[in-house]
Amino acid sequence: MTILEKQGQAAKAAAYPLAGAGTAKKNAALQAIADILMDRQAKWLQANAIDIAAAKESGMRPAMLDRLTLTSERIAGIVEGVRQVCSLPDPIGRVEKMENRPNGLIIGKRRVPLGVIAIIYEARPNVTVDAAALCLKSGNACILRGGREAIHSNRLAVSLMQEALVSVGLPGEAVSLVQDPGRESATELMHLNDYVDVLIPRGGAGLIRAVSKEASVPVIRTGEGICHIYVDNEADLDMAANILYNAKCSRPSVCNAAECVLIHEDMLEAFWAKALPLLDRHQVELRADEAALKVLGERALPAADTDWDTEYNDYILAVRTVKDCEDAISFINVHGTGHSECIVTNNYFKAQHFLNAVDAAAVYVNASTRFTDGGEFGLGAEIGISTQKMHARGPMGLEELTSHKYVVYGEGQVRA
Amino acid sequence: MTILEKQGQAAKAAAYPLAGAGTAKKNAALQAIADILMDRQAKWLQANAIDIAAAKESGMRPAMLDRLTLTSERIAGIVEGVRQVCSLPDPIGRVEKMENRPNGLIIGKRRVPLGVIAIIYEARPNVTVDAAALCLKSGNACILRGGREAIHSNRLAVSLMQEALVSVGLPGEAVSLVQDPGRESATELMHLNDYVDVLIPRGGAGLIRAVSKEASVPVIRTGEGICHIYVDNEADLDMAANILYNAKCSRPSVCNAAECVLIHEDMLEAFWAKALPLLDRHQVELRADEAALKVLGERALPAADTDWDTEYNDYILAVRTVKDCEDAISFINVHGTGHSECIVTNNYFKAQHFLNAVDAAAVYVNASTRFTDGGEFGLGAEIGISTQKMHARGPMGLEELTSHKYVVYGEGQVRA
Repeated sequence: MTILEKQGQAAKAAAYPLAGAGTAKKNAALQAIADILMDRQAKWLQANAIDIAAAKESGMRPAMLDRLTLTSERIAGIVEGVRQVCSLPDPIGRVEKMENRPNGLIIGKRRVPLGVIAIIYEARPNVTVDAAALCLKSGNACILRGGREAIHSNRLAVSLMQEALVSVGLPGEAVSLVQDPGRESATELMHLNDYVDVLIPRGGAGLIRAVSKEASVPVIRTGEGICHIYVDNEADLDMAANILYNAKCSRPSVCNAAECVLIHEDMLEAFWAKALPLLDRHQVELRADEAALKVLGERALPAADTDWDTEYNDYILAVRTVKDCEDAISFINVHGTGHSECIVTNNYFKAQHFLNAVDAAAVYVNASTRFTDGGEFGLGAEIGISTQKMHARGPMGLEELTSHKYVVYGEGQVRA
Repeated sequence: MTILEKQGQAAKAAAYPLAGAGTAKKNAALQAIADILMDRQAKWLQANAIDIAAAKESGMRPAMLDRLTLTSERIAGIVEGVRQVCSLPDPIGRVEKMENRPNGLIIGKRRVPLGVIAIIYEARPNVTVDAAALCLKSGNACILRGGREAIHSNRLAVSLMQEALVSVGLPGEAVSLVQDPGRESATELMHLNDYVDVLIPRGGAGLIRAVSKEASVPVIRTGEGICHIYVDNEADLDMAANILYNAKCSRPSVCNAAECVLIHEDMLEAFWAKALPLLDRHQVELRADEAALKVLGERALPAADTDWDTEYNDYILAVRTVKDCEDAISFINVHGTGHSECIVTNNYFKAQHFLNAVDAAAVYVNASTRFTDGGEFGLGAEIGISTQKMHARGPMGLEELTSHKYVVYGEGQVRA
């Protein structure tokens, strides 16, 4: 048995008592985790300092370095997140429907944990705690494989969480960390079919595609977002410009940010008169097709073919001219990633048609795609945004980390 | 582009109009399919005769040959199945919850088709029509890859179904058949990630494991069933014997049949006195552990280690002695396949504990595992029984062939 197989076996063994633990015990564990992370924050900061020093030495980019860095304030935020998860309703044990069948069998569909959830993510120590808290609350054991750059921070966080689990009588192995976060351990995790019930990659498009292609364990794809705003010829142009500005510029690094605007060919001049002053605030780079270039002139660069399939995660926007709503829908269904798509229009029929015909996790009329988020959708917290259709689609909260079992109460019935 | 990629592309293109087709149109297609299969049954029987002749020549086993064979009566049954699917409620378009968020966004969770469903199955021409009907009703295009031995029967059935689809104004490509059903086409289908939204293998354990291991497209595992009956020391022994007899003998070839009985050590003599006369009716072969052998004597063979992990699909039963309910639960959670598991007991607390602690799609108290079935569970029809936890678990009806999308109605909202 490899080290990771042993870890998988221990996680599976821990998953059973966790699945049977009631809400009170799971909440006690979450409170204990919040307390210990707060009490021992000096140690956590020390461990983080080792990671930071090594990262600086290796020349890590400032944005990455920032994500890796813990501060007292950030720890307080992480701890507050754990307390919020604690306050969410527990999905486990809820019976969604229960029927009395003609033969007298009583059959109920009861929510249960998935079992063992593996999560592969990058150098963000906050994810270590967030993900563990969501898995615990939903009764799942988790195997965390964070980035190599955060290994000291993660080791300390996980050992504190294990101490908290044990203090309330739950097995420490319910939360565990892959100790050697190299490429080999990621690959092995993708094939740990005997122990891993689902693998969630959280990170860049490269990671997610690699996992989807390589893994033999069930995977939930998250986070790839090439989102479009379609500005119809019957749009309120102030509203359209405002929505585009928000969708592009409020946080360009996230998956629900817009990457491409589609503009009805009749609206080019009028729309850009409204939109450019807003986009200029962040000097958004425009990469436009020929028709749009005629209006935008030197404000834009000519788009290459690859621009229609690129998630920039930056202040860059692809600009495409379309003939009508139908043309926009076709374009989106080819070039979108099934994340979040928006039409801006005053026309009722086009709005309904867009909602029906666009194939994505979230389809919007007259609102920014930036709302695709567990908190904004009312799920309380989220572990990621699924862009696949199976199991979960869109923001994934606690319920998306569960499965169900049928419980059947009989009185000796046999099948004819 | 390979032939299969082109087929995938065509299926994907057909999936869009199908997803937007209303219930009336989909039902019209199903009625047209039922009618044409009935009207042209002579042609279908001719095609089937070619398959049968080839199968006989190649020395196919009688049981397999029987599954491959069509008769007028069987065709009538298949057609009746299509009409039943037609009469089921359409899950598509149903909005499961709709909320008015504090910012005025109205967010609804609407059921939508998965898209393109690929199904790999063996030489059973009835599955070709069953599977297509369920996919159509749930708004999904399907790519069917039946067994090589049924190729003439399947080609004719699919061409008739395509004719029926076109006659009601739906694209024929919504149902298509892999024309060259070799191993290569199965492997290619498992990696057709651009076009296949989900792959469902229907068949033996070997096929299902191969698909789960090899496929990069999302898979729903179906059908592996090593089901247990645990006879507690507080069981009604007549009931226990009757349940075991039903679970083992009413149809041993199916996945919800029992393969192993676990007997409380205090009940060995009393239980077998009741159970043997029933099992003797079918000369069920018993493979028992040491403790049970002492009671069963020459009526049983000694079990090998492999017997605890074998799906016999035959009149063979593994027999294991356990110390108590807890021992039975541990054994099941190691050796079961997560399909259907049963306790026979009069004790309330053990019944509840078994329901909670056993990790399976369906957990029974005092009833035969043979009830795990879409029809018996009230789903109307089923495309298989999932033994995985993600997406669907247990019998899969129309709803399990769907996903959802969030539809968001705004008035210009942007995110702060």
